[in-house]
Amino acid sequence: MCRFVAYSGPDIPLENIVILPQHSLLNQSQHAAEAKLAVNGDGFGMAWYSDQERPGLYRDVLPAWSDRNLVDLCRMINSRLFLAHVRASTFGETSRSNCHPFACGRWSFMHNGQIGDFARVRRRLEASLNDEHYASRRGSTDSELLFLLLLTNGLDHSPYEAVVRTIRQIEEIQGEISQPNRLTASFCDGQVLYAFRYSSDRHSPSLYFGQGLDHGGKVIASEPLDRGTGTWEPIADRSFFTLAGGAATTQALPF
Amino acid sequence: MCRFVAYSGPDIPLENIVILPQHSLLNQSQHAAEAKLAVNGDGFGMAWYSDQERPGLYRDVLPAWSDRNLVDLCRMINSRLFLAHVRASTFGETSRSNCHPFACGRWSFMHNGQIGDFARVRRRLEASLNDEHYASRRGSTDSELLFLLLLTNGLDHSPYEAVVRTIRQIEEIQGEISQPNRLTASFCDGQVLYAFRYSSDRHSPSLYFGQGLDHGGKVIASEPLDRGTGTWEPIADRSFFTLAGGAATTQALPF
Amino acid sequence: MCRFVAYSGPDIPLENIVILPQHSLLNQSQHAAEAKLAVNGDGFGMAWYSDQERPGLYRDVLPAWSDRNLVDLCRMINSRLFLAHVRASTFGETSRSNCHPFACGRWSFMHNGQIGDFARVRRRLEASLNDEHYASRRGSTDSELLFLLLLTNGLDHSPYEAVVRTIRQIEEIQGEISQPNRLTASFCDGQVLYAFRYSSDRHSPSLYFGQGLDHGGKVIASEPLDRGTGTWEPIADRSFFTLAGGAATTQALPF
Amino acid sequence: MCRFVAYSGPDIPLENIVILPQHSLLNQSQHAAEAKLAVNGDGFGMAWYSDQERPGLYRDVLPAWSDRNLVDLCRMINSRLFLAHVRASTFGETSRSNCHPFACGRWSFMHNGQIGDFARVRRRLEASLNDEHYASRRGSTDSELLFLLLLTNGLDHSPYEAVVRTIRQIEEIQGEISQPNRLTASFCDGQVLYAFRYSSDRHSPSLYFGQGLDHGGKVIASEPLDRGTGTWEPIADRSFFTLAGGAATTQALPF
Repeated sequence: MCRFVAYSGPDIPLENIVILPQHSLLNQSQHAAEAKLAVNGDGFGMAWYSDQERPGLYRDVLPAWSDRNLVDLCRMINSRLFLAHVRASTFGETSRSNCHPFACGRWSFMHNGQIGDFARVRRRLEASLNDEHYASRRGSTDSELLFLLLLTNGLDHSPYEAVVRTIRQIEEIQGEISQPNRLTASFCDGQVLYAFRYSSDRHSPSLYFGQGLDHGGKVIASEPLDRGTGTWEPIADRSFFTLAGGAATTQALPF
Repeated sequence: MCRFVAYSGPDIPLENIVILPQHSLLNQSQHAAEAKLAVNGDGFGMAWYSDQERPGLYRDVLPAWSDRNLVDLCRMINSRLFLAHVRASTFGETSRSNCHPFACGRWSFMHNGQIGDFARVRRRLEASLNDEHYASRRGSTDSELLFLLLLTNGLDHSPYEAVVRTIRQIEEIQGEISQPNRLTASFCDGQVLYAFRYSSDRHSPSLYFGQGLDHGGKVIASEPLDRGTGTWEPIADRSFFTLAGGAATTQALPF
Repeated sequence: MCRFVAYSGPDIPLENIVILPQHSLLNQSQHAAEAKLAVNGDGFGMAWYSDQERPGLYRDVLPAWSDRNLVDLCRMINSRLFLAHVRASTFGETSRSNCHPFACGRWSFMHNGQIGDFARVRRRLEASLNDEHYASRRGSTDSELLFLLLLTNGLDHSPYEAVVRTIRQIEEIQGEISQPNRLTASFCDGQVLYAFRYSSDRHSPSLYFGQGLDHGGKVIASEPLDRGTGTWEPIADRSFFTLAGGAATTQALPF
Repeated sequence: MCRFVAYSGPDIPLENIVILPQHSLLNQSQHAAEAKLAVNGDGFGMAWYSDQERPGLYRDVLPAWSDRNLVDLCRMINSRLFLAHVRASTFGETSRSNCHPFACGRWSFMHNGQIGDFARVRRRLEASLNDEHYASRRGSTDSELLFLLLLTNGLDHSPYEAVVRTIRQIEEIQGEISQPNRLTASFCDGQVLYAFRYSSDRHSPSLYFGQGLDHGGKVIASEPLDRGTGTWEPIADRSFFTLAGGAATTQALPF
């Protein structure tokens, strides 16, 4: 299990979301309230967009709370669109290659959850990747693989379709499972912020849409960043969420 | 706050104490039960003795639970006498120089607690060091400084006297304090295992003496490593503890 | 390119080979004399055997010369059989999962060189792994993959045959290559030390067999560890080397 | 010995100086041409200014060439004024606290060289610090101490005077020395870029002033970043250099 946050809105210092709120992502790294594990100390990362196509990527294996660099980077870097993630590992060692977000071209991606029975199905899932995205596999996590499957399944053309196809593909390859699929993810192409929650047992990790932050931006977050300041609505399980040009839309996933 | 354990007895793999028990030090790094903070993820370390005078020292800034090397080292290294520590930082960055144990010649040392008003008194305490131990200062913690003060105050000649002198010296230099002194420490010269608890407010961090472990050794630990297997007795606040040749003695500290 | 050393003989501190000789592996990490790159600073590692079947494994991403732990571990740990490696990366990030040696069960393995056109053939080579060893893939290097191919091809039954089969398999899958294969590797099952050199262009990385070290052991090393003290013979390209019970044998590879 | 670069001019991506030039600082980390050691792999760091008073600070213990984050940060961060440094350690472990630049308030500072006989004079030099800057000592290097001495000696009021006073103070405390002082440093208050070279034996580390870079900015660098593109003039030993509002001035130091 992990915790994450994604922001879209006017240019702000990353610290306004990642560090400063009462229940910021940094706070959630030690005191997560709605996760199985309160501690998310197995690395962290962030991806942020400027006027270049490719996002910047900063990831490290230290706990977020131990990294002095993180505090300074979040104070100095401004962005209109960024993702940040703190990790509690289920599969895969604590290495930078296994830290979220993952990036590929203009896309960045982060995940909270698990592909059920991953050890059993990993090989067949990797075999489903197209050559281009097979070649860019760096680590050993189910999360990086989920991202590469989405890319293989047409993330560039239709994010919604790619998500539906990827979940179908995973469940076909799995057949009967002894562990549930619990997939809560957020991703971005540099313009639009996407997210989805899907679980085979209706227990996908928590996800909220937050508005009314004092800096005018909007946020998708594992947990509300504060109490009272913003308005926080849960995003439903088995739904697909889009935040484009400040407008949020939610579609049910067809499962 | 931190958690630690020290072992003296027959040669055993370090994992028998550090990794394998139900409430091992590794377990305490995420689930400490008797500390202000349950998580001790700001680095870790261990010092162990073989037939050389100087102990081996292994320290890193990762949380103990993230370090695959630690598991293998504890499986492969046997020792009759060792100290291990997981850190939750109060003063000083997460750097190897600030991780415990500290070592100097044949001595190793680890600490759990704080020198009250440390920022205010640091300079005068450092000025109390003799030249030799001033020169070996590497980090910026109160813990390393406490060790160097003990060495300056005659740890080689009388550990008990060095502890008494050092606490007196600290409190003289402090005068009135706004934060309590809470000092729970353990240290070793390669033969005898020492520990003490002292606090100005009778709230020094917990410390236990454990016997009857199945491998016959004896242990000083922040928290009992198991329930039922061994016999665990609290070591009293304001006392000085010695474990020499398998025999434990406790002396009151004269405060 | 990388540099490595493997030792078999009486129990000695690892430092006698890794740290202390005039041109020790630590020295080679900054001043390699027979490699394309003088600096091997992209991580390091060692595997050593005691009376357990599985070797101990210690790897880190720092340069060997920056790691204080390495010096202490090599001073404290004794072994009759060990491998050590310093890395200069060609494929794969600097992560612990990409550092050598790799270990699987009783086997440890390290490599110096490259599989030609690796990006082009990686997928088909990984598809050649059996399920067991596919599942244990952790990083993204050609070196780890070479080890897993050897295991798939019967390393447990006949190391010589496994090497021949694996080289044939790689070259069949490659077809025509634009980069040469240069494979200099050493591996161990806890009893016997093996090594081979193979290159498609007769330029495999250097490898020597060293005897007459003052502690009586024997060594396979990328470069002689000293001048004068021992006797160092080059191991020929396209040959397979075995050191068992103190006796060295060399077989030509059938290419 | 180390290598460094400082830039002042129009806003540019840090990579234009740190990564992209033919003999960039990243290149100098492995292939320094005018230093005793070609390899500067004991950590790195950078400080950069935006519209805040305090610079951002990013430092790590990996070699610059191993850190994927560095490449992305230098691609994404723009600045009008920044310092960057790669370290080859003389005193002090490889820890972030010992990496340059150091920062205090609006000041950032980096150094290449050594205080002669540092172990012998460290204590008396530290005793010369005022309380404020004594309290901010984090590591154990002569370089951080040199920065804190400059601050104590009035860096805020007159950088030139602070340099002169600090060198006099160091040499008074040293008396006769067995190792030369070799001090090449650069520092910045967020507006003006300063540098000086001083050595007791006329062998201070190299330093150049570079103009005519295609992005119009000006640079102080241990070694020219390219051949032909810019104009590079050596800064003389025993001189004090100022770059303010695009105008460079050099003053002789009175020794």
